[in-house]
Amino acid sequence: MQSGLQSKPIIALAMGDPAGISPELTAKIAALDEVHAAARLIVIGDRRVFDRGAEIAGVRLDIRSVPADDPLEAGSWPVFVDLGHLDPATVEQGVAAIEGGSFALKNFRHALTMAKHGQADAVCFTPFNKKAMRLAHPPYDDEISFSAEEIGITGPASEFNILDRLWNARVTSHVPLSQVASLITTDRVLKGLQLADSAMRRAGFERPRLAVAGLNPHAGDGGNFGREEIDVIGPAVEEARSLGIEADGPFPSDTVFLRAKSGTFDGVLTMYHDQGQIAMKLMGFDRGVTLLGGFPFPICTPAHGTAYDIAGRGIANIGATRAAILLAAEMAASRRRAATPASL
Amino acid sequence: MQSGLQSKPIIALAMGDPAGISPELTAKIAALDEVHAAARLIVIGDRRVFDRGAEIAGVRLDIRSVPADDPLEAGSWPVFVDLGHLDPATVEQGVAAIEGGSFALKNFRHALTMAKHGQADAVCFTPFNKKAMRLAHPPYDDEISFSAEEIGITGPASEFNILDRLWNARVTSHVPLSQVASLITTDRVLKGLQLADSAMRRAGFERPRLAVAGLNPHAGDGGNFGREEIDVIGPAVEEARSLGIEADGPFPSDTVFLRAKSGTFDGVLTMYHDQGQIAMKLMGFDRGVTLLGGFPFPICTPAHGTAYDIAGRGIANIGATRAAILLAAEMAASRRRAATPASL
Repeated sequence: MQSGLQSKPIIALAMGDPAGISPELTAKIAALDEVHAAARLIVIGDRRVFDRGAEIAGVRLDIRSVPADDPLEAGSWPVFVDLGHLDPATVEQGVAAIEGGSFALKNFRHALTMAKHGQADAVCFTPFNKKAMRLAHPPYDDEISFSAEEIGITGPASEFNILDRLWNARVTSHVPLSQVASLITTDRVLKGLQLADSAMRRAGFERPRLAVAGLNPHAGDGGNFGREEIDVIGPAVEEARSLGIEADGPFPSDTVFLRAKSGTFDGVLTMYHDQGQIAMKLMGFDRGVTLLGGFPFPICTPAHGTAYDIAGRGIANIGATRAAILLAAEMAASRRRAATPASL
Repeated sequence: MQSGLQSKPIIALAMGDPAGISPELTAKIAALDEVHAAARLIVIGDRRVFDRGAEIAGVRLDIRSVPADDPLEAGSWPVFVDLGHLDPATVEQGVAAIEGGSFALKNFRHALTMAKHGQADAVCFTPFNKKAMRLAHPPYDDEISFSAEEIGITGPASEFNILDRLWNARVTSHVPLSQVASLITTDRVLKGLQLADSAMRRAGFERPRLAVAGLNPHAGDGGNFGREEIDVIGPAVEEARSLGIEADGPFPSDTVFLRAKSGTFDGVLTMYHDQGQIAMKLMGFDRGVTLLGGFPFPICTPAHGTAYDIAGRGIANIGATRAAILLAAEMAASRRRAATPASL
């Protein structure tokens, strides 16, 4: 039988943009008993930046540092993997800079590599600044494509937004609105439902109830304001149902979240970025989690950004980051259980 | 000097779809002292349908009936204009039917005609069912185009959604999402800002603070996910500002309503239907008001629909309808004041 400690999943937490709230968030999270009860935590970054974050956050904590390439097996938890690559004195708070982007990118890459090699069961990160990421790495598009490239996967990947127990998945994401309609195909909607269904099952839903949003106002109003609901989305819902997925819709997107919020659905598949994000951020800006799905391990982050405007004041709300870590731990633990014969 | 009674605006309230909650809503509203304190009310419909609604709603009220073509000057308020055109025994509750559509359409047309001829200062209506409207009048598109045709105006008209003190206007409305981007022009965004600014001033805002939403995810992310913010929307905001309109943006649409909700803005101009409706319905489904702007008089209705599922049970929430009547009264009173020399 496994010991309680060893059965806990290992989470690699990469420090995000150092000019925002990431250092203080990371320190506050690493100080939470609740996190250590759920997971063995590895924080990845520069120890000096982390210590500065702890000072801002006003937390004291006991976390041993190890150099980047040392083995982690022996010793106490949590662990800080010190890449020693950024002096906090050089960080200008509230400014997107190449040094900050490079710092976040290296931490994230290290975390992904650890998980890829089985040294961690899940990856989390505190917020990145996209502009800084692009300064450091011009081809940087978003977390999904970067992760896919780093891990070397080519299958369908997708982003989920999660608020409390409500999930939101989307068919299209960071594309101009003018391209959205042409990207909505029966195949993509069906894949979106399959990805959501499987990720939610792995997160503990036995049979997730999924609502599908329409694309057009009033879900097309019977074809008067667009036909995608009739020609494309409806058939995908039917096909998903025939595959055993509890999908329903398409529903008008301006009321589907009211129904989901009331408990009618566990998740909503939206057709484009803002259709879901407007609702999810209104319902709980401070608690939302982003999960990258379709990878061999969970990758979670708070849904909010770097909050440059309040960085360094120690007032950053850790709700979403805590929720991200706990979701990653829950999903990783569920994978471990699934991979372990019941007799052990 | 005008008497208190005569200075109150006259509101023509058209009964909506008889198979939904409209009859009970209309009766509840006509029984409210608060409504009569703000306006002289004329209800337009069939007296038998109205009485059935009063019975369902459990309200008793004193309202005199007059035939459609009688003069209204003499006698007490409120008044019921009885078109005598629908027997409630023929109405199947919860079903969109040609008879119901025809009933609502005739009531609405009568109310618009009264206002057009100066017999009413504002028009309100309880919810219509679009399918029933089209059964009765196949070219029926939406309330805006129908009203424009009936009144005979050709200038720009627009729909506003109002929740408590927060206004939402939009550049495009009932069009397929695939057409939205091509309809977003600097001229249309500017016109939307001008319409919102003038309607809000008439509703009592001295200098409305207007936020403008972007079209693309993250408001285009500096051009990475679309260029409309840079090429089209930004210039319109600049031009509006040069005309004295307090406009700001474009802002990412997934956080602009959080800022507006916190009191930073009085109104948000959105680029398409669901961008605003998702937020407004989540923030207050039961209290939202729709105002048709750009007409010579205010036209208001609750933002919700006919609620076929709860019709006839007397449980319909009157919050939005009451808010619609009170907004119409406030706007009409403000127009009366503006049109009356101060010395009178």
